[in-house]
Amino acid sequence: MNAAASERGRRRSGRSQTRPASKPVIDQLSWSIPEYIDRPIEPADEEILERIHLTSLQVLEEIGILFLNSEARSVLKTIGCEVDDVSENVRMDRALVLDAISKAPSRFSITPRNPARQIHMGGKNFAYSTVASAPNVSDLDGGRRVGTRADFQNLLKLNQYFNCLHFVAGYPVEPVDIHASIRHLDALYDMLTLTDKVVHAYSLGPERIEDGMEMVRIAAGLTEAEFVSSPRMFTNINSSSPLKHDWPMLDGAMRAAKRGQVVVVSPFTLSGAMAPATVVGALVQQNAEFLAALVLLQAVRPGAPVVYGAFTSNVDMKSGAPAFGTPEYVRAMQISGQLARKYDLPWRGSNANAANTPDGQSVWESMQSLTAISSGHCNMVHHAAGWLEGGLCASFEKLIMDCEMLQQIIYLNKPLDTSEDAMAFDAIREVGPGSHFFAAEHTQRRFKDAFYSPFLSDWRNFETWEETGALRVDERANRIIKSILEEFTPPHIDETINEELADFVRRRKAEGGAPTDF
Amino acid sequence: MNAAASERGRRRSGRSQTRPASKPVIDQLSWSIPEYIDRPIEPADEEILERIHLTSLQVLEEIGILFLNSEARSVLKTIGCEVDDVSENVRMDRALVLDAISKAPSRFSITPRNPARQIHMGGKNFAYSTVASAPNVSDLDGGRRVGTRADFQNLLKLNQYFNCLHFVAGYPVEPVDIHASIRHLDALYDMLTLTDKVVHAYSLGPERIEDGMEMVRIAAGLTEAEFVSSPRMFTNINSSSPLKHDWPMLDGAMRAAKRGQVVVVSPFTLSGAMAPATVVGALVQQNAEFLAALVLLQAVRPGAPVVYGAFTSNVDMKSGAPAFGTPEYVRAMQISGQLARKYDLPWRGSNANAANTPDGQSVWESMQSLTAISSGHCNMVHHAAGWLEGGLCASFEKLIMDCEMLQQIIYLNKPLDTSEDAMAFDAIREVGPGSHFFAAEHTQRRFKDAFYSPFLSDWRNFETWEETGALRVDERANRIIKSILEEFTPPHIDETINEELADFVRRRKAEGGAPTDF
Repeated sequence: MNAAASERGRRRSGRSQTRPASKPVIDQLSWSIPEYIDRPIEPADEEILERIHLTSLQVLEEIGILFLNSEARSVLKTIGCEVDDVSENVRMDRALVLDAISKAPSRFSITPRNPARQIHMGGKNFAYSTVASAPNVSDLDGGRRVGTRADFQNLLKLNQYFNCLHFVAGYPVEPVDIHASIRHLDALYDMLTLTDKVVHAYSLGPERIEDGMEMVRIAAGLTEAEFVSSPRMFTNINSSSPLKHDWPMLDGAMRAAKRGQVVVVSPFTLSGAMAPATVVGALVQQNAEFLAALVLLQAVRPGAPVVYGAFTSNVDMKSGAPAFGTPEYVRAMQISGQLARKYDLPWRGSNANAANTPDGQSVWESMQSLTAISSGHCNMVHHAAGWLEGGLCASFEKLIMDCEMLQQIIYLNKPLDTSEDAMAFDAIREVGPGSHFFAAEHTQRRFKDAFYSPFLSDWRNFETWEETGALRVDERANRIIKSILEEFTPPHIDETINEELADFVRRRKAEGGAPTDF
Repeated sequence: MNAAASERGRRRSGRSQTRPASKPVIDQLSWSIPEYIDRPIEPADEEILERIHLTSLQVLEEIGILFLNSEARSVLKTIGCEVDDVSENVRMDRALVLDAISKAPSRFSITPRNPARQIHMGGKNFAYSTVASAPNVSDLDGGRRVGTRADFQNLLKLNQYFNCLHFVAGYPVEPVDIHASIRHLDALYDMLTLTDKVVHAYSLGPERIEDGMEMVRIAAGLTEAEFVSSPRMFTNINSSSPLKHDWPMLDGAMRAAKRGQVVVVSPFTLSGAMAPATVVGALVQQNAEFLAALVLLQAVRPGAPVVYGAFTSNVDMKSGAPAFGTPEYVRAMQISGQLARKYDLPWRGSNANAANTPDGQSVWESMQSLTAISSGHCNMVHHAAGWLEGGLCASFEKLIMDCEMLQQIIYLNKPLDTSEDAMAFDAIREVGPGSHFFAAEHTQRRFKDAFYSPFLSDWRNFETWEETGALRVDERANRIIKSILEEFTPPHIDETINEELADFVRRRKAEGGAPTDF
């Protein structure tokens, strides 16, 4: 019987008794900040990588990027960019770009209100988040629907529950039953009370990002001086590819940078649609759009923590539909990793797929995405759990399935036991031919933790599996969701701080929240 | 609309018209012998690899392996092994092992009756086969059941149809409606007429392997001298782990080696059951069992083509159930690849999983298996398409799903276009900000083959997918199976040869086939 099933069995049989509060719903890996252990896969040789780099510099020098934000253009003009305020185009010399690269930090940590949940960006560290910004949500019970605050909160609870999830990369689903002008206040309040992990605030106008930073500061009990002294949260901005950075994203990014918070810059370069129909061409454009924002942010605050965001995938040429987890995505991600390492910057990728339901296709596309970014040493993995439909839907069951896959990748990156005892010469002699190792002393000593133990895989034989309902993995995941949500306990928060947060939300709601007219 | 769906649409609308014979059911990659393009992942450093090697030599010198075959023991005695005919244990000095390693060829080809289907073993080449030796078969229409000749033939037809499948590694499912004494005759006849790819004959007694070789010789129209001059087929033997080689397997392997045919030696070392409960311990044992057989086969015929078979996985320690596609399997396979390269021998792995149905679990376990063996540069991939339940079931739908995954891996190993034109500077300038690349000349030139085009993925938006039946990937695969089988045309075979084959089958059936008493 697998762990989840036996756990369910124990739970059922124990219903009438007092269940120990500490008894977990599933056996999961403990919290850790994992590190990649294998050498990265690097499909581009030095010469190709250099040509991608140089061509993107040529784009910045000869073509330029639109900055639809006058403050950003002013800053860029000050440091010597060639700015055209009519077309809003900005061209920049390669010396400015190289200078910005040299100023940006290679490694930094982000510390949420619970310092034990600190995550590290750069090097061989990696961290996973739940799906972000999906307009729809689905589960096997309710089907696919527009997201509500209840769904939003349940997805946050799952994020908090799973130790393989390290941060919250945005709203797991848009809680559309909260008015857009005050949504960010309720959403941030939920994120900061239902989880104690690193959170994200959207760059969608000054109020949202400033309120977000303020709430993160309050939740961690920090003075403004303490807050700005090191990264406590992050924002993600996307360019409007090709070659354009929009006003609200730039505004939010600059505000975050000014207060020392992390900006992830993720060009939205779908090859064949918003970027050239070649992997390296799309990467040239991704790189140019990223570097343009990096120059701005290092001008706003030298040393501002910036993450190289890579989202390059391709579209289906027949239909224009976005595709993820494809061979092109694999190569685009691995080379993005090379570019980030060339610049000595942390990089962000995604566990993406384009399937409409948590079936086999969703899994092979996800596994290819995860293999791509793992083999490329991606530090910050957005959408690691729960993403479906190219990001248009947050799936509860897929989230659970992804956590099983994420756990296995984390486990795979633990060092293998290669001691003399592990080589097992004596055990092989002890057992000898025609016997088995079940009862061997060598096995018994390792019984508890010899191998990775999944919480979702069903390894029972067909007959037993069939007798107990013949459940597909998504159906088993559905049961686990309910158990977790039923047992969920929010992380501790100081009551004074909770009240201060709630007061802030009330006050800002009374003030009208944020405009919704852009 | 995806390729498969649009193809189905075209087929339906064209039912009443004359359908061109050459029109394929799906758009698939053309036949190729792919080569790995990335550097292998090598989790064991030189020192660890050497210790695994040395410990397995110590097993052979100090513990020994049972050879339950007196001919094999005689051969081994002749070359200087320490043979105990009572216990049937054979110990061998490391010098004998190193000598055998030096005699075995690093690379060879296997040429089936259609020389265009030749496959290459060793180096960076890889080749895929269908699932082999499953007792059960399943599809969405008939559920799970014992296999019949009709299922067997249909699985062979799918193997022949898919260009991503390169050889037949055994009976895709046991055709249990054919009496065991003559099963191999009908089965080989079907394999040699429904496919023109490399086939396998079982080492289950002298008749089966000799009949198999004879039928392969006849099918290719070869004299005996031509047949023995180069590999035309292969057999696979498993040790009865721990530390035992059984009579029929040894007999078959020696017969194949004598006639110059390929022997794959695959120890059945499930860590925690038939092998130590550590990855490296199980590998020590796998390696010892493999090397023992290698010594025998090189003694039988110096230079005999042998493949390093690796099947090491682990069991669930709670239940003893075999597990595949686990983190342990990944490491066991990657280090097996290192061992095979250390010995400069081709190696064989598997696309394995332990799921009971072609759901997400089956796919993530398969994808981890495939990632493991691809990243370890596995040459010969058994069970690449259609395996479920740890090998107890051949799934039609999983076979189709696997072929989609295999195609993507093959495509991933094609070189990326990194030309100046692919860098797309001019295209980026031409399109400029605020536009898109759909109509760009750079895109139009690449329209047809810019990206990998899947035959099974559904990338349409949720609404369209739902309107057209909301089919899961296994349900879509089920439709494709029917289309392929409906359109299947057997490969050409010379009528005289076909008659000679049929005559051979008739004659051997009249003689009683093979004994079934072991």
